[in-house]
Amino acid sequence: MNEKLIHWKDLFDFVTNVMIQLNVREEDAKKVADNLVIANLRGVDSHGVARLKRYVDGIKTGYIIPDVQPKIVKETAIMANVDGQNGLGQVAGVFGMELVLKKTRKQGIGMVTVFNSNHYGIAGYYSMMALKHDFIGISMTNSSPLVVPTFSRDALIGTNPISVAVPTKKNRPWVLDMATSVVPRGKLEVYNRLGKKLPDGWATDETGRGTNDPARVLRNLLDRLGGGIFPLGGEGELHSGHKGYGMSVMVDIFSALLSGSNFGPDVVNKKNGRVTFPRVGHMFMAIDPDYFVGKEVLKDKMDEYIDLLKNSKKAEGQARVYVHGEKEFEKHEIREKEGIPLDAKTVESLLKISEEFNVPIQFKE
Amino acid sequence: MNEKLIHWKDLFDFVTNVMIQLNVREEDAKKVADNLVIANLRGVDSHGVARLKRYVDGIKTGYIIPDVQPKIVKETAIMANVDGQNGLGQVAGVFGMELVLKKTRKQGIGMVTVFNSNHYGIAGYYSMMALKHDFIGISMTNSSPLVVPTFSRDALIGTNPISVAVPTKKNRPWVLDMATSVVPRGKLEVYNRLGKKLPDGWATDETGRGTNDPARVLRNLLDRLGGGIFPLGGEGELHSGHKGYGMSVMVDIFSALLSGSNFGPDVVNKKNGRVTFPRVGHMFMAIDPDYFVGKEVLKDKMDEYIDLLKNSKKAEGQARVYVHGEKEFEKHEIREKEGIPLDAKTVESLLKISEEFNVPIQFKE
Repeated sequence: MNEKLIHWKDLFDFVTNVMIQLNVREEDAKKVADNLVIANLRGVDSHGVARLKRYVDGIKTGYIIPDVQPKIVKETAIMANVDGQNGLGQVAGVFGMELVLKKTRKQGIGMVTVFNSNHYGIAGYYSMMALKHDFIGISMTNSSPLVVPTFSRDALIGTNPISVAVPTKKNRPWVLDMATSVVPRGKLEVYNRLGKKLPDGWATDETGRGTNDPARVLRNLLDRLGGGIFPLGGEGELHSGHKGYGMSVMVDIFSALLSGSNFGPDVVNKKNGRVTFPRVGHMFMAIDPDYFVGKEVLKDKMDEYIDLLKNSKKAEGQARVYVHGEKEFEKHEIREKEGIPLDAKTVESLLKISEEFNVPIQFKE
Repeated sequence: MNEKLIHWKDLFDFVTNVMIQLNVREEDAKKVADNLVIANLRGVDSHGVARLKRYVDGIKTGYIIPDVQPKIVKETAIMANVDGQNGLGQVAGVFGMELVLKKTRKQGIGMVTVFNSNHYGIAGYYSMMALKHDFIGISMTNSSPLVVPTFSRDALIGTNPISVAVPTKKNRPWVLDMATSVVPRGKLEVYNRLGKKLPDGWATDETGRGTNDPARVLRNLLDRLGGGIFPLGGEGELHSGHKGYGMSVMVDIFSALLSGSNFGPDVVNKKNGRVTFPRVGHMFMAIDPDYFVGKEVLKDKMDEYIDLLKNSKKAEGQARVYVHGEKEFEKHEIREKEGIPLDAKTVESLLKISEEFNVPIQFKE
């Protein structure tokens, strides 16, 4: 199997039709498709259609229920807690962020937590939904345990991402979208495939000490033998690994403990050999700058700050200083025109799904 | 001059009386004293009374106005933007967080930004004010430029700390209080005093490349010759330095751009040889868990999570897994009983202030 290019619309239609075959309502199928395709367009291929198989498996296995709707269980004019009913994370996520935006339009701020959900794709998808209103958007989620707390040898915490999106005028919006681990698991997989040694400070083996062996870490994670990925800041406290550890716990608190969802090592879809709901938790928030300095002033100041960062003196050997979201917006523009490249493994997985559900997929010539 | 021990109450009285001599109202003087003494009690000596001289100098030089009161310039039931009037950061900070708590008691959430302020001490002081109500507290502030954005060679951003405090039942509260740089400047000063080389990934010289020479970095920062401290995650993108860079910009956005304060390289008290207001910005927030899972459930879940982390298997060679705030609460208990140790340099600085303002200081025997 080879790498292939695909037009984003063809990819969108394919994912939508597969989801419909799996008993997902058409409008919800489109939410999943949009979320995955946007990830691919932005270059975040680890969170794009390479994940489709996992969603398909989740529905088939039973830990993702395809045809449920999120339900508000507690609500005020500003806040809400939402039961995702163990449906698709994207359906609960879009529901949660739309509710936030409705509240923010009226009250200037909105905050919604979601419990009983599943993997919701890229965190930035939801924070960026605030941008069309010129609001600041915030999104975070917990995820399956891969990260080892400082001085521990157990992978107890997720890579728990945070995203913050801020509107601008002249420049592209500022979009931070980051896992709170030093690297995602995908990076270890890439090093493993290439037979490369891991840099120091990325991962620990089953003793809790740093290792350069990606195969060992990945195998240990799979079999839960101990060890895993370090939090942002790396091993121990020398480079402040305890800060990344704290941030990932913070994401768990806001998205899971506050909503009443699973946290830490319980965010798994299999326990003692039996399928179980991972009960992922999310948190969404938006802020209307008009209640503070005002939208127009904020956007002008954002442009000023972004220009300052981009025009700062470069480190020797570096050609550019980036601001957050910039690389992804550039990639989006290119891939929207030229198509989305899919690696051989992803092509193979999509073709299998195409065959299984009798849904055609159209690659570019 | 030698190290000395001092009882926290004697230190509190000393700082209060010095501030009063500088034309600060008694109740505001006590806010500054409480903030600095709590930092010392918690073991964050870099933000304790070692800073008193800077506050004294700020008032004498004119960029901290001792006798002004914060002023609300925009307000709703949930939000407010506050003009610190270039007074003491602690006065504006306590005003801001108390306003947040008042709003949160009524609405379940409160968010206040502050502009035209000064250095406000430890971020955790304010987030922890939420704990007596069993609210989650959030506090962040920008600060003077010391940190170099990824791939730049200019120190454009502050060490911009974030603090989040979460209530618990059985365990001590969970308190994250972290600068978004890999280390604070104080750590470089310690290495410099000891004649030790810096670890890789802490700081850059004027070329924008990593250096192990603390004296060079500190001199460059002082003379603004280029280079500075790396963001959390270190140099370049290999260990995700761009994530720490993004978080420090995020703190600038929430505390300064949103409030209408100075940001990035403008947070200085001297410009082109002339004294200027640094116009520091802060952001405070609180959330009442009763609007989500409920206070009692959250506190029980926090205890469960903290126990899980602390009881996890230790990395080889490690005796303990800490949770955030734990070390500081332990230190607080010890220092409250045994006294606060002050290093020789701090003792000397306090004795000079004591003499200048004719305010006695009482050390322990």
